[in-house]
Amino acid sequence: MAQKKMILDLDTGIDDALALAYAIADPAVDLIGIISSYGNTLVETAGKNSLKLLELLGQTDVPVFLGESHSSTTDHFDVMEISQLIHGKNGIGEVELPTANRALETQSGVDFLIEAAHKYQDDLILIPTGPMTNLDAAIAKDPSIAELIGNITFMGGALTVPGNVTPFTEANINQDAEAADRVFRSPAKMTMIGLDVTLRTLLTKNETNQWRQLDTKAGKAFADIVDFYIDAYYNLDIDKNGCALHDPLAVGVAINPAFVTTLALNMKVTHDGADYGRTIGDTDRLHDKRINMQAAVGVDDVAYLAYFMQLLTDLFKKN
Amino acid sequence: MAQKKMILDLDTGIDDALALAYAIADPAVDLIGIISSYGNTLVETAGKNSLKLLELLGQTDVPVFLGESHSSTTDHFDVMEISQLIHGKNGIGEVELPTANRALETQSGVDFLIEAAHKYQDDLILIPTGPMTNLDAAIAKDPSIAELIGNITFMGGALTVPGNVTPFTEANINQDAEAADRVFRSPAKMTMIGLDVTLRTLLTKNETNQWRQLDTKAGKAFADIVDFYIDAYYNLDIDKNGCALHDPLAVGVAINPAFVTTLALNMKVTHDGADYGRTIGDTDRLHDKRINMQAAVGVDDVAYLAYFMQLLTDLFKKN
Repeated sequence: MAQKKMILDLDTGIDDALALAYAIADPAVDLIGIISSYGNTLVETAGKNSLKLLELLGQTDVPVFLGESHSSTTDHFDVMEISQLIHGKNGIGEVELPTANRALETQSGVDFLIEAAHKYQDDLILIPTGPMTNLDAAIAKDPSIAELIGNITFMGGALTVPGNVTPFTEANINQDAEAADRVFRSPAKMTMIGLDVTLRTLLTKNETNQWRQLDTKAGKAFADIVDFYIDAYYNLDIDKNGCALHDPLAVGVAINPAFVTTLALNMKVTHDGADYGRTIGDTDRLHDKRINMQAAVGVDDVAYLAYFMQLLTDLFKKN
Repeated sequence: MAQKKMILDLDTGIDDALALAYAIADPAVDLIGIISSYGNTLVETAGKNSLKLLELLGQTDVPVFLGESHSSTTDHFDVMEISQLIHGKNGIGEVELPTANRALETQSGVDFLIEAAHKYQDDLILIPTGPMTNLDAAIAKDPSIAELIGNITFMGGALTVPGNVTPFTEANINQDAEAADRVFRSPAKMTMIGLDVTLRTLLTKNETNQWRQLDTKAGKAFADIVDFYIDAYYNLDIDKNGCALHDPLAVGVAINPAFVTTLALNMKVTHDGADYGRTIGDTDRLHDKRINMQAAVGVDDVAYLAYFMQLLTDLFKKN
């Protein structure tokens, strides 16, 4: 099987760090670049975190680009307090990683995405794990890419369960519901990895302990980073047992769709009123035979966790 | 295949009339009784409509019981204006059917349901096509019946699409969200036939014309009744092409589950705030291996419509 060209669009972020590690570890992935987004952190912090993590994992040939620094409807972004509590002020659980030797690319993330879409077309998978702002901006600049990109597998949204910011909206979509709505209604081929499935996954300190016991730099750093996340979940009463594998599940499904069951459904995102950011079926396109969204509604969490642990533990063993 | 014992809980209602006809026409159904509900009409009107329709269809051995006359949180019910516009003031599209020779039963619908649940247990299918008030009242009076009834296949709710009363709630659930929430959280085995699938079905005047051309009393009456509904859908801009087969789809699925694809999901109903009556996954029971709800999310509308037309046309031919 040929490797899949993959671009990660990360607001790095603890579960983004796990998505990054997963993409590096999976032999089926050719990670051609990372675009940074605002969200869990500021866009610059996210970019620098990605560079640091790549270096920690011995992967110094993946370029990191800066994306948009705020939503399509604002001119500024401040990290929400809740995000800082969950991901730490530095985005990676207050763990201090050495400043990377490499710098961020000077090309914009949006332009990199457009270029890659034309170059790789159907072979390209894009994984947004934060707001849809970068993808929306790229489609606005070059609408042809919506149909070119092979698949956009994103972490975000909540179809069959309530949101985690309000009962209606999930955190990533909530950052820029207008951008997400435009992307949902575009011809882009998408797979939604929402709270419907990510809340069914669970990583505990049993797993992070296995990484710590590897006695490697990466194993210890990732154990510390993720333990911060698990503690935050506990202290904020999100989950007393462990943390959800939100972002890395999107990477996993992009390569192995069988980890989830999906519902083919044209969707929209509400962006006015109390239900801002609700991801829901678009009644106007209910009879349309062209369906551009596969929404994940079931997950084989046991199989996924086993593969996730195999990949990441092997990667951390070597670094 | 043995016949299934079926109880219809109808707020008759035009699509309720179609559900009634479907249950009579399907040889796999043994219709043991009809309980009346408020909703599309007052409970007494619903009961009398059911009696008239049974007589029109030559089925004079099915008893009709009165259920609750208002929701569990109110002491009174007035038919909403929109319901009168859709179903007519008399509930059956202003078509005048002869007063039935039979009377409503004196036993209450709630007691009849409790008795039948104990008698038939796993062989019993209950089809609520209106509010959940009767079922909720029966479970309150005798909690054991929740687990006894073989399956409750109801028309109501909206999981993956917006509601039809507000963006959050569907009309049946909206009548008594508190009752529906209690039933959803009970151990009752349920199948939800919501707007997710019913909006994907369509009946047009092409079909009602086939009934009219049978030149029978029932064919003509049902053509008139349903044409009123199709006209209302047109005039109220609900659908310009025809009407949805809401209630009869529930009867169809109860007998032939293969008409739909379902999602196994524990659900709840919101009953405070702007999203009153929202039917959504219950995060608290997301990890519970006991799942009591199968929510229909896909439908083979072509196969269903074909079978629906075959059953009803044959029935109307003889009456």
